[in-house]
Amino acid sequence: MVKVAIIGATGYTAAETIELLLRHPEAQVTYLTALPEECGAVTSIFPALAGRLDLDVEPIDLHKLTAKADVALCCLPHRASMEYVPKLLDAGLKVVDFSADYRLHDRALYESVYKVEHTDAGNLAQAAFGLPELFRSKIIGATLVANPGCYPTAASLALVPAMREEMIVPEDIVVNAVSGASGAGRKASLAFHFPEMNENYFAYSPGTHRHQPEIDQILNDAVGRACKVLFVPHVAAFDRGIAESIYCRPAKDVTPKQLLELYQSCYKNEPFIRVMSQPPKLKNVTRTNFVDIHPTVVGGKVVIFSAIDNLVKGASGQAIQNMNIICKLPETMGLL
Amino acid sequence: MVKVAIIGATGYTAAETIELLLRHPEAQVTYLTALPEECGAVTSIFPALAGRLDLDVEPIDLHKLTAKADVALCCLPHRASMEYVPKLLDAGLKVVDFSADYRLHDRALYESVYKVEHTDAGNLAQAAFGLPELFRSKIIGATLVANPGCYPTAASLALVPAMREEMIVPEDIVVNAVSGASGAGRKASLAFHFPEMNENYFAYSPGTHRHQPEIDQILNDAVGRACKVLFVPHVAAFDRGIAESIYCRPAKDVTPKQLLELYQSCYKNEPFIRVMSQPPKLKNVTRTNFVDIHPTVVGGKVVIFSAIDNLVKGASGQAIQNMNIICKLPETMGLL
Amino acid sequence: MVKVAIIGATGYTAAETIELLLRHPEAQVTYLTALPEECGAVTSIFPALAGRLDLDVEPIDLHKLTAKADVALCCLPHRASMEYVPKLLDAGLKVVDFSADYRLHDRALYESVYKVEHTDAGNLAQAAFGLPELFRSKIIGATLVANPGCYPTAASLALVPAMREEMIVPEDIVVNAVSGASGAGRKASLAFHFPEMNENYFAYSPGTHRHQPEIDQILNDAVGRACKVLFVPHVAAFDRGIAESIYCRPAKDVTPKQLLELYQSCYKNEPFIRVMSQPPKLKNVTRTNFVDIHPTVVGGKVVIFSAIDNLVKGASGQAIQNMNIICKLPETMGLL
Amino acid sequence: MVKVAIIGATGYTAAETIELLLRHPEAQVTYLTALPEECGAVTSIFPALAGRLDLDVEPIDLHKLTAKADVALCCLPHRASMEYVPKLLDAGLKVVDFSADYRLHDRALYESVYKVEHTDAGNLAQAAFGLPELFRSKIIGATLVANPGCYPTAASLALVPAMREEMIVPEDIVVNAVSGASGAGRKASLAFHFPEMNENYFAYSPGTHRHQPEIDQILNDAVGRACKVLFVPHVAAFDRGIAESIYCRPAKDVTPKQLLELYQSCYKNEPFIRVMSQPPKLKNVTRTNFVDIHPTVVGGKVVIFSAIDNLVKGASGQAIQNMNIICKLPETMGLL
Repeated sequence: MVKVAIIGATGYTAAETIELLLRHPEAQVTYLTALPEECGAVTSIFPALAGRLDLDVEPIDLHKLTAKADVALCCLPHRASMEYVPKLLDAGLKVVDFSADYRLHDRALYESVYKVEHTDAGNLAQAAFGLPELFRSKIIGATLVANPGCYPTAASLALVPAMREEMIVPEDIVVNAVSGASGAGRKASLAFHFPEMNENYFAYSPGTHRHQPEIDQILNDAVGRACKVLFVPHVAAFDRGIAESIYCRPAKDVTPKQLLELYQSCYKNEPFIRVMSQPPKLKNVTRTNFVDIHPTVVGGKVVIFSAIDNLVKGASGQAIQNMNIICKLPETMGLL
Repeated sequence: MVKVAIIGATGYTAAETIELLLRHPEAQVTYLTALPEECGAVTSIFPALAGRLDLDVEPIDLHKLTAKADVALCCLPHRASMEYVPKLLDAGLKVVDFSADYRLHDRALYESVYKVEHTDAGNLAQAAFGLPELFRSKIIGATLVANPGCYPTAASLALVPAMREEMIVPEDIVVNAVSGASGAGRKASLAFHFPEMNENYFAYSPGTHRHQPEIDQILNDAVGRACKVLFVPHVAAFDRGIAESIYCRPAKDVTPKQLLELYQSCYKNEPFIRVMSQPPKLKNVTRTNFVDIHPTVVGGKVVIFSAIDNLVKGASGQAIQNMNIICKLPETMGLL
Repeated sequence: MVKVAIIGATGYTAAETIELLLRHPEAQVTYLTALPEECGAVTSIFPALAGRLDLDVEPIDLHKLTAKADVALCCLPHRASMEYVPKLLDAGLKVVDFSADYRLHDRALYESVYKVEHTDAGNLAQAAFGLPELFRSKIIGATLVANPGCYPTAASLALVPAMREEMIVPEDIVVNAVSGASGAGRKASLAFHFPEMNENYFAYSPGTHRHQPEIDQILNDAVGRACKVLFVPHVAAFDRGIAESIYCRPAKDVTPKQLLELYQSCYKNEPFIRVMSQPPKLKNVTRTNFVDIHPTVVGGKVVIFSAIDNLVKGASGQAIQNMNIICKLPETMGLL
Repeated sequence: MVKVAIIGATGYTAAETIELLLRHPEAQVTYLTALPEECGAVTSIFPALAGRLDLDVEPIDLHKLTAKADVALCCLPHRASMEYVPKLLDAGLKVVDFSADYRLHDRALYESVYKVEHTDAGNLAQAAFGLPELFRSKIIGATLVANPGCYPTAASLALVPAMREEMIVPEDIVVNAVSGASGAGRKASLAFHFPEMNENYFAYSPGTHRHQPEIDQILNDAVGRACKVLFVPHVAAFDRGIAESIYCRPAKDVTPKQLLELYQSCYKNEPFIRVMSQPPKLKNVTRTNFVDIHPTVVGGKVVIFSAIDNLVKGASGQAIQNMNIICKLPETMGLL
């Protein structure tokens, strides 16, 4: 039984991680931490857990951590993560980090995107990027895994097969993405106040979202070619899920059938990727770790649709998938 | 053309009032005020008004107010209202006040319910209670109208006909009410954060909500008998509307048909009350000033269903109805 | 490993049952049936199951059924159920039936409520009523379990403790219930067409819903006293969940604290009942098998709030709880 | 007072048209028609209209029509429209037709897209395309106006200014559109059944939607250059509104500021177009006749966001705008 600590256990990704671990046959939540002012019974923070998890959220204590846990799932925001992750590693734990702090290999890029100095260059260099479908071999054996962003997960898994076969021009890719409101986190704000957000839909940060360079990096790492993606996120009035409609310029002649077969072949051994013959419906992936992908050719463009649950494959589910890998458990355990 | 000032023009009831006045053929919004830190172009506060209303929200200036407006619709919260209303009246305006400050005739009751000293007893004594279907004669000629609460509007209009005919026992009434989330106002909070409130439903303040004594007072005033209502509000994941299911002990034998006919007869001249032969659907009243009421007898109880839009008949629409009355305009003007 | 057949595998309760069984460590879905015209790959009916369940939905074949399954979860509508249940039992399976056909002991009452002749009186007499918290001893050892209705589950678990202690008058109980739209089933209709139902809320069948006599029966069976409930269901614009606000006349003096302690004591060993000190929020029970109950005393009434997921504790989860019991598995297995 | 008949008065666009006309100071609904089997009091079809409109929906009678109405707003579906429109015109009425039957000038194109023979070529040749911001001069004086499709309205108003100035390459335009569920009409179907559509989002008909050639035609007519748009519609779980995110290849160097100023200048006299400095929020346009447009340059693309209410500017509001024009009323009357 793998003993799991959750660091920063007060947000939606922590809640989702706990829900998923409660169903996991070989892992157990043993330790929950947060800032002192946020602590208390986990059921006072997440009343839905009453009757299922009898633990307190406590201020972090590294001795307790070492005694209680084998692996830490670190749900802190960026900047806070790189303060704690070195301590978690020094305490002897394996770590899956949800933040952006260990995702971008290039420290200067990180600092320019996140407007903060990177203080843990050593571990940054060692971190595996936790997108198993693309980088599984590097995750096996890692002690620190940088869990990918939600939008980049959906985008890169949709794009890599076509890019590998040089079917699309890597400098001319538009990712039109829509996320549910849980993607904005658990902090109340006017924009996400129910009477404002309900029945609403809008784009934000077109071309300037922090996930854009992350997508570029993944594609470059996976395919070995520089890419340039225009990433335009939107938010819509549903709880969960990300749906991306991706528009690419073809680099060669390809039919819809050829493209579909390429994707089916490419992902035939991937348990969490479902290649589909029509655009995915978001509701079919919510509360699952699946990525539903439909590639097609239409109107002179290669168009690829992908859908995930932002809190599962886009965060907590993928973290558990990574945890399974680094803890030598079957990769799909607790996730199907 | 009646010139209208809106005092406290930054919340949902102010926005709704503006929307309604934009369609009103004989009234015009001329002056908008708020606290200095909330001021600016009204379209920066409510972008939906761009292209329709070119006004700034300004700190209140009583000289300007007198020059610009005939009537003030005061959208301030309780306590703030009674600071400003005397000044508005002294400035020579007629006032419709949205807050609770002038609703409860009994100052001691007000102070016990709202936990604040009442500082304007003089005007309290003069205020008309602005439920035209019950107290029209007192509103005509008033200079200060206390606009009723949303829940009490739906409850009292549903109950008065049966009570007047002594068909129900006034000490044994349960009002089970459900409101849309806009009823909670425009201030962001965790409970109304979209991912929390969406797909949610819950009761709050059962038997202790501040509208309970207001309902009791209206019924007592309208019928001349002491009443005792148990009021249990709930909130559900929709923007607008209040639906109430009201359970009463019959005081005499009555059939569903008799009850229905009583209500039809009682309200046959009321343009905003629709007596129905089946339970109302909320969506039929949203964005209207109607009250849909279905009275019936079933399972040994008199059961009355009523539905309104909390922002229209429950607030801004009713305020304009009152404004029409005190400004000698046709009561339904701009509201059908 | 218990092998499970699902009979009538095309509706929401079947889909939910499959989802729950996929997580169950000691049960496995082995056989799915439907009417011939509805058959095909289960993933064509429920695309969300792709990659998780590779089975066809087939026309029922009793030989196959016997070979493939130990227990049948029968998700047929009433009337169809009593045609198939005898065959399922004759085939040697244990059966949990989701329909109303085996719930009402009194055949004449069934026939008057459901307007259809009961054709399986023999099995009706043998069926256990599958509300484990009230009738566990009768379920153990049963071969046919009548899974309760969703509304009656929430109502009766909320009422029984107060009734047993004679704290409320059994002839004066109002159950005001609200259900999510999935309660209406998977058949499209104008009333549940998205643009009609979204942002809507309404009562239906006040005092005449078929679940009303079922509630009366459960209370009578559990407490040994005749009861009379007025049941008024509503539907609201959310997917899942039932919330009930129940209003009772006290039969004796009782404080909120005494009532709360009574419920806590009564249900202290029940893993799926959470007695709460404030009204439950629906979202805390959705996708769980919990019943959240808050009993209180206010305004001269005993008021009890309860919340369940209509598809889990109100249908599929409770069916699996019953299956666990009759198959000698731990009662909570796969459900926490 | 303009007397208005609504032909085909049982769908969402008819209901919206009635709502808008009830507020129109110089127009009045006088005659409502539908197929015989759909007739009855308009309030039995749309209960929200009770107390506001006391008319029956009747089978069409051309003599009555001539006597009662000056203008017909024809809300029939395509194919049915071209059967009735000639009769409406022969009866001496001006007509605004909501269907696609008179939108595409090229009869062969119409027949290939809509898979039906065009039976009214004469009137097709005379019909004005009812997008006033682009073709106002042709609408003035027309007796038959083809009201545009909802998606094409939002797309073409967003694209024309950039195309006119040759800022974008007309052969490389992607229109990613999202519509609320009311766009699917009032006929119930599984895909739009509340429990299926709620919390859902998906693309449909990518590159093959019937509005794609309509967009191409508008752009060609307005700019005088052949265009090629890839149109990819999606549907999301809200009632109303269309939001489009449009991606174009720049044809020349342009800064965001230049583009914004171009749009501001181009539309400075258009009362229903609001050029914005950030992406529009859908909720700011719902229930209005506005088009909110934000053009920008980012990531090497010209990106234009536009938002409308599909039932107002995308259908009924625009029809009334057209009616105002052909009836010599102020164009914005009843619409601000």
